[in-house]
Amino acid sequence: MIKPRTPPGVMELLPPDQIAFQRMLDTIRRNFERFGFLPVETPVMELSEVLLTKSGGETERQVYFVQSTGALGKAESGTGEGMPELALRFDLTVPLARFVAEHEHELAFPFRRYQMQRVYRGERAQRGRFREFYQCDIDVIGKDALSVRFDAELPAVIHSVFSELDIGAFTIQLNNRKLMRGFFEAQGVADGELQALVLREVDKLDKRGEDYVRETLTGEGFNLPADGVEKILDFVKVRSTSHADAMAQLDALGEGNDSLRDGVAELREVLELVRALGVPETHYALNFSIARGLDYYTGTVYETTLNDYPQIGSICSGGRYENLASHYTKSKLPGVGISIGLTRLFWQLREAGLLGKATGSTVQAMVALMDADSLPDALDIARRLRAAGINTEMQMEARKIGKQFQYASRAGIRFVVLTGEDERARGVVAVKDLLREEQFEVAREELASTLRVELEQAQVLAGR
Amino acid sequence: MIKPRTPPGVMELLPPDQIAFQRMLDTIRRNFERFGFLPVETPVMELSEVLLTKSGGETERQVYFVQSTGALGKAESGTGEGMPELALRFDLTVPLARFVAEHEHELAFPFRRYQMQRVYRGERAQRGRFREFYQCDIDVIGKDALSVRFDAELPAVIHSVFSELDIGAFTIQLNNRKLMRGFFEAQGVADGELQALVLREVDKLDKRGEDYVRETLTGEGFNLPADGVEKILDFVKVRSTSHADAMAQLDALGEGNDSLRDGVAELREVLELVRALGVPETHYALNFSIARGLDYYTGTVYETTLNDYPQIGSICSGGRYENLASHYTKSKLPGVGISIGLTRLFWQLREAGLLGKATGSTVQAMVALMDADSLPDALDIARRLRAAGINTEMQMEARKIGKQFQYASRAGIRFVVLTGEDERARGVVAVKDLLREEQFEVAREELASTLRVELEQAQVLAGR
Repeated sequence: MIKPRTPPGVMELLPPDQIAFQRMLDTIRRNFERFGFLPVETPVMELSEVLLTKSGGETERQVYFVQSTGALGKAESGTGEGMPELALRFDLTVPLARFVAEHEHELAFPFRRYQMQRVYRGERAQRGRFREFYQCDIDVIGKDALSVRFDAELPAVIHSVFSELDIGAFTIQLNNRKLMRGFFEAQGVADGELQALVLREVDKLDKRGEDYVRETLTGEGFNLPADGVEKILDFVKVRSTSHADAMAQLDALGEGNDSLRDGVAELREVLELVRALGVPETHYALNFSIARGLDYYTGTVYETTLNDYPQIGSICSGGRYENLASHYTKSKLPGVGISIGLTRLFWQLREAGLLGKATGSTVQAMVALMDADSLPDALDIARRLRAAGINTEMQMEARKIGKQFQYASRAGIRFVVLTGEDERARGVVAVKDLLREEQFEVAREELASTLRVELEQAQVLAGR
Repeated sequence: MIKPRTPPGVMELLPPDQIAFQRMLDTIRRNFERFGFLPVETPVMELSEVLLTKSGGETERQVYFVQSTGALGKAESGTGEGMPELALRFDLTVPLARFVAEHEHELAFPFRRYQMQRVYRGERAQRGRFREFYQCDIDVIGKDALSVRFDAELPAVIHSVFSELDIGAFTIQLNNRKLMRGFFEAQGVADGELQALVLREVDKLDKRGEDYVRETLTGEGFNLPADGVEKILDFVKVRSTSHADAMAQLDALGEGNDSLRDGVAELREVLELVRALGVPETHYALNFSIARGLDYYTGTVYETTLNDYPQIGSICSGGRYENLASHYTKSKLPGVGISIGLTRLFWQLREAGLLGKATGSTVQAMVALMDADSLPDALDIARRLRAAGINTEMQMEARKIGKQFQYASRAGIRFVVLTGEDERARGVVAVKDLLREEQFEVAREELASTLRVELEQAQVLAGR
């Protein structure tokens, strides 16, 4: 007897939670498609040679390699050649780069794609860390060039997604790498690596406090001038409180150098278009502390936070990059993308008690079975409900009716339909509405349409 | 520069095909849920110890093992301990068994679950063989016992799925392992292994012909009596042509032994309930040649074939089993299940030219951009369309209008919406309907509702 269990670091859900998770996936997909993004799915296994071209040491250490039984035998007998041929994808960006380079001549650019699949990382086992998790990505890829206008489309999609997910107030925070670089250069921090080190220290503001960071940056190692450090500390504290305030904050940066000017101009255009796309100004803001992957992003960068749960951190991040697929093609493919780590988000929402329990089952109605003789009749009722598009479960065995009600109630099924001899004789069925806690009779012919109306009303009330 | 490519044996689709594939997945999911099946997703990686308990040598040779970089290093330096700790699932049945045993006390039985995920097999690379492919499974699992009535529910689901997939006429073919065992015992083939060997020969009927099979079974090795072999050959040819004919064929088997009688009684009940569930008699039939996994199935067995494309073989198969999870729990968990191998089915339908090309994009409308000044106005139109639930792509750069139409046409987008100075002045937008090949003007305020009506009409016409 083997103990049934999953490996550490994976999230497996019981049906009620899986239903909630699937609804989030559906909502995300629907909104990605609403903005004209096209679906792509790539294989979970890529050739190691292709997958590991781009990534540095940190990522490589976390890669899962795959070997069939045959290849494994060879490796063990010492005839294998080092790195296994196959590996599991660790993100959706490298597969996107491979996909776009491979199918460059079959795709129309700018290419808007979405991809919602699981990725794999050999993370240290730890609560809330996952070795298998869903990423839900959108990217726009241009050929040779891609207008900064596309940088405004992503916040509009994200606003639409999180509004419909209905997980509380959120803010899409924007920054721009050119603006940051220009600002740091003006403070005498011109070198990219040094900028990264400074930002790493600045990132400790919340945990270690301002004094600690000030001392570190002015102290040995960094040796930055005190007034420059003050300017940096003021800079990274900038948050805008409205559209007009965001524009004013950009004005306040002054003329500056080329890089700063470029960044300011890009952010201005992006913010104006985000507003034109209908995102309310309460839902986006400047945040000059956002850096993201410094070696990768080159323009706009995004993070999204839940206003009432800042401790959850960014629930959706991304930015603009210069060239997607330089390892696979000579074509220049600039892009802008954003990613939701849904497994982690779901886990955190559940931990914070923010998953609505009232969402109910996918099953909308249950046909109870009073006695064995009623079976053909009950099956016919189930058939009619299903034909009308109502998700219907059938009790195939006549258990005590109390048990059947109890089951439906626990399962989150709203309607229980009953038909006994008496009801049959009168051409009606009895319906128990477990949501409203009331029972009613309805003519057999009108059952399906009656329940449909009730279910559609409930959907309208739920704001969907 | 690395050549961008996928490993052999995987199916990766460009967006138009991915959209068609996703629509099939959605249809299958919708119908699974329509019958009250609940979603489960399991991790792609299972503990090898858990995954490989049940499977025999054949399956084990096809398993993909997974090792993180760290584990791989240990294995190479000889400190590893034989079989890697993790492996990729090769079907959805073993993970189901593990899941049900693990969560036995949290699930309500009978437990109806569906699962639609990819599985992995180290198949020999060959055209039409896949190493990564989708399986779409439904199973009903009972605790201690499970009424044969549930065996009737699966064909009703399958009928609903394939009717809506609209890939041509199909027949769900049924047989029963008890009936088969009883019949073979009566012909003196009582031993299970011998039955399997006989069935393997019978399976060659189509390829090698009746004479070959007759000679083999009467010849050395089998040594079966000639009249018994004739009875077997007649038996496996039985196909019913209607519900009444199916009943008559079951009658014609006579009294027989216990096993035969049990099998006949089960098939009778299943067929009656399949009819009561509304499956037309043109869509199900007896087929006494269906055996399926002999070591696994114990009662009803199913295969489904496309009437006009028998060469595709079974597109959906399954059956009744005695005990799902004997390696993980002492509880007896009988079940009945059926599986669609969607990747293979999609590939075959595409090869046979049976994928409707007319399905169109997920993108329903495109807002063209006449000049840069129109951008805020165009974005507002896009916003209104999206708010009305219409999937809308925005042209962010003002290219030649002919190019924009050409793009929309190639991409399968139905409506192109235009707004120039003249239209703005008159409060209208111009719409080109690429499906009907006509152009019309509509008041700005009525654009979204007008397109919605058109799209809903098209859906009704398409029978959805």
